[in-house]
Amino acid sequence: MNNTIETMLNHRSIRQYTDQPIEKEQLDTIIQAGLAASSSSMLQVVSIVRVTDKNKRKLLAEYAGNQVYVEKATEFLVFCIDYQRHAAINPEVQADFTELTLIGAVDSGIMAQNCLLAAESMGLGGVYIGGLRNKIEQVDELLELPQNTSVLFGMCLGYPAQDPEVKPRLPAHVIMHENQYQPLNIDDIKDYDQVVHDYYASRSNNQKQSNWSEQVTGQLSKESRPHVLPYLNKKGLTKR
Amino acid sequence: MNNTIETMLNHRSIRQYTDQPIEKEQLDTIIQAGLAASSSSMLQVVSIVRVTDKNKRKLLAEYAGNQVYVEKATEFLVFCIDYQRHAAINPEVQADFTELTLIGAVDSGIMAQNCLLAAESMGLGGVYIGGLRNKIEQVDELLELPQNTSVLFGMCLGYPAQDPEVKPRLPAHVIMHENQYQPLNIDDIKDYDQVVHDYYASRSNNQKQSNWSEQVTGQLSKESRPHVLPYLNKKGLTKR
Repeated sequence: MNNTIETMLNHRSIRQYTDQPIEKEQLDTIIQAGLAASSSSMLQVVSIVRVTDKNKRKLLAEYAGNQVYVEKATEFLVFCIDYQRHAAINPEVQADFTELTLIGAVDSGIMAQNCLLAAESMGLGGVYIGGLRNKIEQVDELLELPQNTSVLFGMCLGYPAQDPEVKPRLPAHVIMHENQYQPLNIDDIKDYDQVVHDYYASRSNNQKQSNWSEQVTGQLSKESRPHVLPYLNKKGLTKR
Repeated sequence: MNNTIETMLNHRSIRQYTDQPIEKEQLDTIIQAGLAASSSSMLQVVSIVRVTDKNKRKLLAEYAGNQVYVEKATEFLVFCIDYQRHAAINPEVQADFTELTLIGAVDSGIMAQNCLLAAESMGLGGVYIGGLRNKIEQVDELLELPQNTSVLFGMCLGYPAQDPEVKPRLPAHVIMHENQYQPLNIDDIKDYDQVVHDYYASRSNNQKQSNWSEQVTGQLSKESRPHVLPYLNKKGLTKR
């Protein structure tokens, strides 16, 4: 166990922030940490839009489904898949393969996690905002993204003004397989449902009666942002 | 600057490993670090297949385009997008939205980066293997992945038996935007091309004459794994 791993194991999403600013040097270091992460074939297909404009923040909070912390966070970064740089260098670039969107999504996750963890290692907290994809076209227009570039997710950062409990995860043996995929043992989920139920019932804020199975099947039994694929296609991505 | 950020800034992909084993406790901690990362709506859509079977390793190295370190690495993990758990709990689950593949790709990147960084913080090194997608169907069959589950990328881990230079990245001002997207200034790329050229010409191993523009436009001016979308569709993903 070391500081880096302790920071990881202590991760909670932080949605309330003090007024303490994030210094320019801190933000620069957070971005450098992100840049230092692995990049598939060194393509470097991520762009970050830092949103400091108060009106844009207010709109983004609305677009994300009234997530007020998008407006209130000390910093708000939007991570984008960006093949426009490559297309600007050479118009022969073919960015419309699904493979390239996968690279963009994976590499954005890798880079963003370095940024978040660098921030957490400084005592900051944050949360990913996938909700930007609720209104992905509107976010795109607000940030004036060009062709071959797409909104992916946001990240709020700031000094924590809350201290939530660590949320229990699926046990390792459920997500880990050796040499071949092992079908789910439903008893593992029953046990985990009880753990999640107890967590929700006893946590210090926003207590509720629910478990993991109910939550995820509720969410996945309906349409999941069906406008995302048409949006990506319109931007010249994920066509084939 | 702290240990966590130093580890990030010191990242190099490690492709040669000593014989020193990774202890079970270390691997457990690496996986726990991955599990502790953010998960979109707590869906937990990542599965990891640890490949210890020597014959499977050999085949995976071949499938990845003869990347011998896939065979030689002390540990090899395959990260997969997995909605099969959710479908096993409730057959009403609709996993075929592109949105859900994006979540899977981003969350895999986030989780994997925690794993890699946890490993690096222990003195281990590693490298991501996107090349598994060269033969994504064959990898899928080898690991016996079910419907609603897809191969994404691999990760080699081991104690470093090499000490490569840190590869220069695009400067922060090229990937960072404020409030709206700023079109590329081609002079920035000319400067960076010189930096990358000098890096390739002077590094201690595998010296070559090339720059960033040449490399990325070469790679992106041709088809990028066109079989990936049909594969995802066949697995019940990314259809709409």
